Amino acid sequence: MSGQPYERFIHKVKEIRTLNSVLGLLSWDQETQMPPKAIQARAEQVETLSALVHGKLVSEEMGALLQEVSCPGSATLTAEAAANVREFRRYHERSRKMPEDLVRELSRTCALAHEAWVKARQSSAFDIYAPLLEKMVALKRREAEVLGYAGGHVYDPLLDQYEPMAKTAEIGPLLAGLRDRLVPLVRAIANSPRRPRQNLFPEGSKFPREAQREFGLAVVRDMGFDLEAGRLDTSHHPFCSSAAPTDVRLTTRYDEADPRSGFFSIIHEAGHGLYEQGFDPEHTGTPMSEAVSSGIHESQSRLWENQVARSRPFWERYYPKLREHFPAALERVTLDDFHFAVNEVRPSLIRVDSDELTYNLHILLRFEIECDLLTGALAVSDLPKAWNAKTESLLGLTPPNDADGVLQDIHWSFGGFGYFPTYTLGNLYAAQFMATAHQEIPDLEARIRMGDLRTLREWLREKIHRHGMRWHAHELVVQVTGKPLGVEPFFDYLREKFAPLYGI
Amino acid sequence: MSGQPYERFIHKVKEIRTLNSVLGLLSWDQETQMPPKAIQARAEQVETLSALVHGKLVSEEMGALLQEVSCPGSATLTAEAAANVREFRRYHERSRKMPEDLVRELSRTCALAHEAWVKARQSSAFDIYAPLLEKMVALKRREAEVLGYAGGHVYDPLLDQYEPMAKTAEIGPLLAGLRDRLVPLVRAIANSPRRPRQNLFPEGSKFPREAQREFGLAVVRDMGFDLEAGRLDTSHHPFCSSAAPTDVRLTTRYDEADPRSGFFSIIHEAGHGLYEQGFDPEHTGTPMSEAVSSGIHESQSRLWENQVARSRPFWERYYPKLREHFPAALERVTLDDFHFAVNEVRPSLIRVDSDELTYNLHILLRFEIECDLLTGALAVSDLPKAWNAKTESLLGLTPPNDADGVLQDIHWSFGGFGYFPTYTLGNLYAAQFMATAHQEIPDLEARIRMGDLRTLREWLREKIHRHGMRWHAHELVVQVTGKPLGVEPFFDYLREKFAPLYGI
Repeated sequence: MSGQPYERFIHKVKEIRTLNSVLGLLSWDQETQMPPKAIQARAEQVETLSALVHGKLVSEEMGALLQEVSCPGSATLTAEAAANVREFRRYHERSRKMPEDLVRELSRTCALAHEAWVKARQSSAFDIYAPLLEKMVALKRREAEVLGYAGGHVYDPLLDQYEPMAKTAEIGPLLAGLRDRLVPLVRAIANSPRRPRQNLFPEGSKFPREAQREFGLAVVRDMGFDLEAGRLDTSHHPFCSSAAPTDVRLTTRYDEADPRSGFFSIIHEAGHGLYEQGFDPEHTGTPMSEAVSSGIHESQSRLWENQVARSRPFWERYYPKLREHFPAALERVTLDDFHFAVNEVRPSLIRVDSDELTYNLHILLRFEIECDLLTGALAVSDLPKAWNAKTESLLGLTPPNDADGVLQDIHWSFGGFGYFPTYTLGNLYAAQFMATAHQEIPDLEARIRMGDLRTLREWLREKIHRHGMRWHAHELVVQVTGKPLGVEPFFDYLREKFAPLYGI
Repeated sequence: MSGQPYERFIHKVKEIRTLNSVLGLLSWDQETQMPPKAIQARAEQVETLSALVHGKLVSEEMGALLQEVSCPGSATLTAEAAANVREFRRYHERSRKMPEDLVRELSRTCALAHEAWVKARQSSAFDIYAPLLEKMVALKRREAEVLGYAGGHVYDPLLDQYEPMAKTAEIGPLLAGLRDRLVPLVRAIANSPRRPRQNLFPEGSKFPREAQREFGLAVVRDMGFDLEAGRLDTSHHPFCSSAAPTDVRLTTRYDEADPRSGFFSIIHEAGHGLYEQGFDPEHTGTPMSEAVSSGIHESQSRLWENQVARSRPFWERYYPKLREHFPAALERVTLDDFHFAVNEVRPSLIRVDSDELTYNLHILLRFEIECDLLTGALAVSDLPKAWNAKTESLLGLTPPNDADGVLQDIHWSFGGFGYFPTYTLGNLYAAQFMATAHQEIPDLEARIRMGDLRTLREWLREKIHRHGMRWHAHELVVQVTGKPLGVEPFFDYLREKFAPLYGI
């Protein structure tokens, strides 16, 4: 049973997590509601609150509490309590290891690098960005050294921030194995004479945003996302922000000339949102009510976006409803047309514009480059050349300029090294979970065809959501699917979907 | 010059004020955006943050800093810095005087009293509310004793929370003097055969909320409210919330059958908003960037709502524009009809439904009752009887039940004793300021008639807004108008407006 010290510990944990949830709300507000001139005032609010949170997190008091709850003489903890202690200790120790001057230098460099990145991208001039990126790589290398990676890879401690316990030595071969399977499949598709219909909608078609929102919300409701415990807004980049399982906020952006991107963003973010709404309310404010990892989080969004909402059974149910919303624009677009169009495979220079297949090649490219930058095998000055070479070998495309090449992503400007791989890990986890779901719910496809999306949500909640951080990702996947993470389920899913579409 | 200790002091002040501004945003979010099920999570965020703020406010460190910046040996402070020290000391000392058990008991009683008030009002059963109101009065009396009122009135320390330095002994005669002038005027109006046109709009008229919002925003822009540093939303009760002069948020509520209440709420809140946007940006986060008092704040909203937006010159400009927004509904409503209708005087049982004249009688009633409850001259059990008797003598009306009588206001349920008088003080300040504005801007009326509302805003900003808490209200009014606060300017304004309308 959890005794007194654990109660005091968890009280402090909840205080920190509650303040963090306020920071999350400030950020949501900034992206969706805040008047533009408030930016400086908002920065001060965030800085003040962040400093408070950091102070509490690394305090001697927290250190002593952690010691107390884990010393051999103390009361035995439940599995849930032990997970809370384990995860909060990781968070605490990681923060304590970071020297103040490094934190300050990183935060200063982030601000400058972001500014330089925006400018460099506008004028497609890598030189503007290069010195700050060099600085950033050096700081992240120092961060990795400070955090430590005993015998592992210098990339490990950075990856670990997003994908706890993941190791470069394991991710690397996984991604390489995926590449070896994907490249021939992409080539076969490229060589197929079949193509989805281009110019799907009649010239000048308009898809009013209110109707797009309405249709998206109807699906989101069918998915079991609780709109009494969440909402949907618009923002420049879609995201999901959660202050508690009872306060989960999705955003999307609408293109009135084409409803596809707005719709799939809604489903993607609602997939994240279902995860956040699915944590055990008993554990709100503790690691037991948080996502296992970025990869697992991404598995939930991609499972709903790609495996469900780009599937044929899904559109058999929902395409007639979509047509009711946009009768004129969709009059001559058949279900087959539409389903093929939302599953078009076409290598693109831009990661965020790419299909669910070639997307992973973009990730592989970034993963390899990040590792090489960190080890020093690649110098920042050689980066554009390396980027272009890899783009050619993986995607068969040549970036015409750096804006559409090495400058396309924001991530490095905020020091987000280690984040990219979690996107593809999300795809792998999603496919492996979904394969198991199909085994355990044999009529799942028929249910989706009938608009019963909640059975799948219940399964995900039961198997994944409600456990929070009880297990790490590599344990969870075994728990749910009986096997460690592999590339086969994802590759099988891709082949089964794309072979018939492209007749290969 | 302000030396080192002042810098450290002001740093701490800004930290506290910044955290308070986050609390303000959480409250705005709760009223306008928050999903309903998030209520418990929000309560925890507010509680956690409030406790942090309180801890910092009453800390030994803050006490020592205040001592340091005010000791005779320290560097001489500028007038602005001295005002910051003076006001923050008041805030600090007030908070320190409150014993923890009293704070806790008040907060617990507020929650219970609010619940009981809602129930009592629904079933018009005062008995449900009485025991908690009794408890609340006892707690507020204890609060007054703890805060102290050396030789003054037990009501003084409560009043002081909203209207710093105001004394019951001064407010009492002021309100009584106003009553002696208002009651005959109300009677004369009641006896006049003239009446505004009833059923102003054709049966079934609809004023779509989008058009109401558009019209309101057009006026708000003309007033000089910066919508890049603010916004307008809807909420159950209209309010103005400010996190910084660059982040000022107004709300209103729309009635699609009648645009008047939604419009005047927008103007009222924008009047508050202009005050908040008008503080000197140099002083953001300190008392120098805060309102003098609730009464002065209310003077700004009422000046714009009543003195400007219910005036004839205003509607000469804006009525044609209103008609453009609602051509069908207003086709047969003349400017005269409309102007008279928005200035109808009719005693009402309900404070929030009453006109700008009889409104003050509602306030007088509440002020007298609050004082009597606090001194013990009136027992809670006798309250409904006393309420009804006063309503009859002041307004000539008899509440048919307690829901439309003593139970109509929320204020006592949250312990807001001392707040009511600031509404009428706002009217008095507004009239006295406006009389001076007319003297100093001789063509002000003509400017308003031309839609030039910014000249008045500039005058208010220069004379009042930018000074923040530099002076207390009784000093400010002398500073701006050359005289202490009196009832004559308000009464003159009322007579000049209503005599021609009602032919008296």
